[in-house]
Amino acid sequence: MATNLIKKGVAVTGYDVWAPTLARFVSAGGSSATTPKETVKGVKFVVFMVATAAQILDALFDEENGAILELEKGATVILCSTGPPEYTPNVRRLLNEKGRSDVFLVDAPVSGGTIRAANGTLTILAAGEESALTKGKETLELMAGPNLYVIPGGLGAGTKVKMVHQVLAGIHICMTSEAMGLAASLGVNTKRAFEVLRAGEAMSWMFENRVPHMLVEDKTVYSALNIIVKDMGIVTAGGRSAGFPLFLSSATEQVLASGVSAGLGAIDDAALVSVYLPKDPTLVLKLASASTTAEEDEKKLKIVSQLMAGVHLAAAAEAISLGIEVGLEPKQLYGIIAGAAGNSFMFKERTPQLLSGDWTSTKTIDDIIAEMTESIEEANKLKYPLHLGGTALQLFELVSLRGLGKEPDLAVSRVWAKVER
Amino acid sequence: MATNLIKKGVAVTGYDVWAPTLARFVSAGGSSATTPKETVKGVKFVVFMVATAAQILDALFDEENGAILELEKGATVILCSTGPPEYTPNVRRLLNEKGRSDVFLVDAPVSGGTIRAANGTLTILAAGEESALTKGKETLELMAGPNLYVIPGGLGAGTKVKMVHQVLAGIHICMTSEAMGLAASLGVNTKRAFEVLRAGEAMSWMFENRVPHMLVEDKTVYSALNIIVKDMGIVTAGGRSAGFPLFLSSATEQVLASGVSAGLGAIDDAALVSVYLPKDPTLVLKLASASTTAEEDEKKLKIVSQLMAGVHLAAAAEAISLGIEVGLEPKQLYGIIAGAAGNSFMFKERTPQLLSGDWTSTKTIDDIIAEMTESIEEANKLKYPLHLGGTALQLFELVSLRGLGKEPDLAVSRVWAKVER
Repeated sequence: MATNLIKKGVAVTGYDVWAPTLARFVSAGGSSATTPKETVKGVKFVVFMVATAAQILDALFDEENGAILELEKGATVILCSTGPPEYTPNVRRLLNEKGRSDVFLVDAPVSGGTIRAANGTLTILAAGEESALTKGKETLELMAGPNLYVIPGGLGAGTKVKMVHQVLAGIHICMTSEAMGLAASLGVNTKRAFEVLRAGEAMSWMFENRVPHMLVEDKTVYSALNIIVKDMGIVTAGGRSAGFPLFLSSATEQVLASGVSAGLGAIDDAALVSVYLPKDPTLVLKLASASTTAEEDEKKLKIVSQLMAGVHLAAAAEAISLGIEVGLEPKQLYGIIAGAAGNSFMFKERTPQLLSGDWTSTKTIDDIIAEMTESIEEANKLKYPLHLGGTALQLFELVSLRGLGKEPDLAVSRVWAKVER
Repeated sequence: MATNLIKKGVAVTGYDVWAPTLARFVSAGGSSATTPKETVKGVKFVVFMVATAAQILDALFDEENGAILELEKGATVILCSTGPPEYTPNVRRLLNEKGRSDVFLVDAPVSGGTIRAANGTLTILAAGEESALTKGKETLELMAGPNLYVIPGGLGAGTKVKMVHQVLAGIHICMTSEAMGLAASLGVNTKRAFEVLRAGEAMSWMFENRVPHMLVEDKTVYSALNIIVKDMGIVTAGGRSAGFPLFLSSATEQVLASGVSAGLGAIDDAALVSVYLPKDPTLVLKLASASTTAEEDEKKLKIVSQLMAGVHLAAAAEAISLGIEVGLEPKQLYGIIAGAAGNSFMFKERTPQLLSGDWTSTKTIDDIIAEMTESIEEANKLKYPLHLGGTALQLFELVSLRGLGKEPDLAVSRVWAKVER
C-alpha cells in the first residue's frame, strides 16, 4: 500500500513493528522511521493501517512514542483499520481533549487484500467531516482509484459500511467451507464442484476467491483466519450493541471460533473446511482429481447449490437489515457490497428487488424450505454438520410459521422487521 | 428389561441379533429363540425394543423371519422404540393390509436408561386405542411401575411426547458439554463447577447425569452419542414436517454431527465436550483437581450459569411450543418431562408460569440479553465457541426487536407465536 504511493511519486516515510516489512519498503524506495512519533514529523498526511482499534490508540496516543507528540498542525489523519463503529468518533474526542481539534480525521476502512493494496485499487469507505474528506481526497484516490466511496453520516459511517460488508464476507467464507466439505462428503470431484457452483446461484466472491486455495497443496496465508474472526467479532458486537439479532453471523462466529480452538487462527481461512471434515481434513484436496462423471456430480451438486443459495439469500437479508438499523443508506450500501468481496449471486440479483419492495420471484418461502430440507436431509444421512444451512432453514421456517409461506422468498427479511406488516 | 420381567414371574422368550446379550438373558433364566418368527410363537404379548423404526419393520414384517408369520390371533404388540411420530400409525396400516386387524398395537416409547430398565421403572409413554391400552396395561406396568403415562391422541401420541422430551434431552446434553468446556476454558476447578452449577438455575437432569463421567477417567459407554444423534434427527425431521422452526434443536444437531464427524459416534455422549476443546479434549478431566479458590471460581461460574439458564429457558419455550404445535396437551407434557431426563431447573420452575399465562418474573427479556451478552463476550475473548449460547441470544434479541424487551423473560416464547399478540 505504501509502495504503491511511492510508485505514484509520493514521498512516504513508513513505520512497522515488523522489521522485515519495513526493510522491504526501504528497498522499494521508501524512507523509514523507528517510532510513530518519528514517522509523522513534518508530514501533512498520515495513514494508519494496523489491525485493530486498540493498535490505533497505541500508535496515535502512546505517551512515549505516539504520533500525537509530533503531529503537524492541521495534519490529515486517515484511519484505515476496521474497528467497531464507535472507535473513530472516540479518536476524535481524544484528539479534541488533547487540544488537537486542528487535526482533520478521516474514517477510512478498506477492503480488497494485498494485491489491490499494491496496485492502488483498494475499496475505501471514507467518512468524516466535509473539510477532512476534502483534505484527504487526493491521498485516498491514490490508494483506491475508482473504488473510493464517500459515505454520508460522519465519522464512523465508513466503519458501519465495512461492518455490514463483513456480515456477508464472514458468512460467505464460512459457507464456502460448509459447501465444499459437503460436496467432498458427497464424493463429488471438488474441482468440478468449484466450476459448477461458481457458475450459478451459489456463487459468492469469497467462494470464487477461497476455493482455489483448497484445491491445491498451498500453505500460503492469503488471509489468516484470525482476521475474519476479528471482523465477525465486530459484527456480532455491533448487533449486540444495536439490540439486533444476527442469526447467521452468530452461527458463523461460532464456527470460526471452533477453527481457532482447533489451532487454525494463524493459517489461511480456506483451512476452515477442516473444521467440517475433522477425520479427513484433506478430503477436498484429494477429491480435486476424483474420477467421477459429470452427470453424477451435477446431481449431487444441486443439493449443495440450493443450500448455498438459501443461506446467501438469508445472509443478504440479515446484512441489509442491519445496515438499515444502523442508519446507512441501503442503495449506496448495495452498490458498495455488490462491487466488493461481500458480493454473491444472490446478493447482487435479489437485493435491488428487496429494496424496491417489488418482491416478485419465481420461488416462495415454502419453495426455499422444500429445497433446503432436501439438502439438509441428504447431509443428515452423512452426519455432516450444516451450521449455516440449519440456521438459515429455521429463519425461513419462522417466516412460514407467521403465515408468509406463500410469499416470495425475499419475505425472509420479515425476520428482522420490527412489526408484522 | 426382559430380565426384570422374569424376576417378576413372567415367562419370557427373548431374541437379539447380538448373541452375547441373548446368552446373558438365558443364564438369567429366560428362554431364547433364533428369529423373531420363532420368538412370538404361542405368545400373547410381544415387546419390541430395538433402536429404530426401520428395525421394527424388519423384525415384524420380514418375509422369511418376521414376527407376523407366527403372531397369535389377538396378540398385543408393544412398540418401545423411538421413531418419527408417523411410524406407529404406519405399522397399524401395514398390519391391517396384511389382514391382521386383530392385533392390538401400543405405541410405547421409553426413556430412562439401562438401570431403570433393569428395575422396572422406565418412563413409558403409552398411546393407542383404548382396547390395546387395556390389554397392554399389565405388561407396561411391570416395566414402568409408577412411571407409566397414558397419552391421549391415539397411535403416535406417545412418540410425539418422546420427541418433545428429546428436544430438551438433546439440547441439555449439548449444553452440558458447551458449559463444562467453557468452565474449563475459564480455568475453573471442574469438580467445583459441577457442584456449583447443579445447585442453581443452570441445573439440568442431563448435566447432573453426564458431568460425573467427564470428571473421572471412564471409558464406559452409558449412552452412545449415536443414540441422541438419532433422536435429534427425529426432532428436527418432526420440526421440518410440521413446518416449525427449532433453532436450538437445529444448532444442537449440527454440534452432534460434528461429534460424529470427529469419530465420537460410538462412545459415550459425555465425550461431546471434546468437540468444544479440540486442542485439549481432556481439559475438563485435568481441571477436576485444579487448585483454584472457591471465590475466584464462583465469579467465573456466574458467566457459565447465566448462559445455561438463558439457553435452558429458550429450550423450554422451544419444546413446549413444538408440543402444542403437534397437538399435545401441554400440562401433561410438562408433568412427564419434569419427572424425566428432559428436566431442568428452568423447565421445572418456569414452564407452569409459561402455561398459566402469568409471566410474572423478576427478569425481563432485556435482562436476559444483558446477562447472556456478558457471558458471550467473555467466551469471545477466549475464542470459545458457544453454538447454543449464541443461538439463544439471537432468539431473545429477536423478541426485543419486536418491542418486547421490557416484557418478562418468558416472552421468548413469542418467537414461536403464529401472530404477534
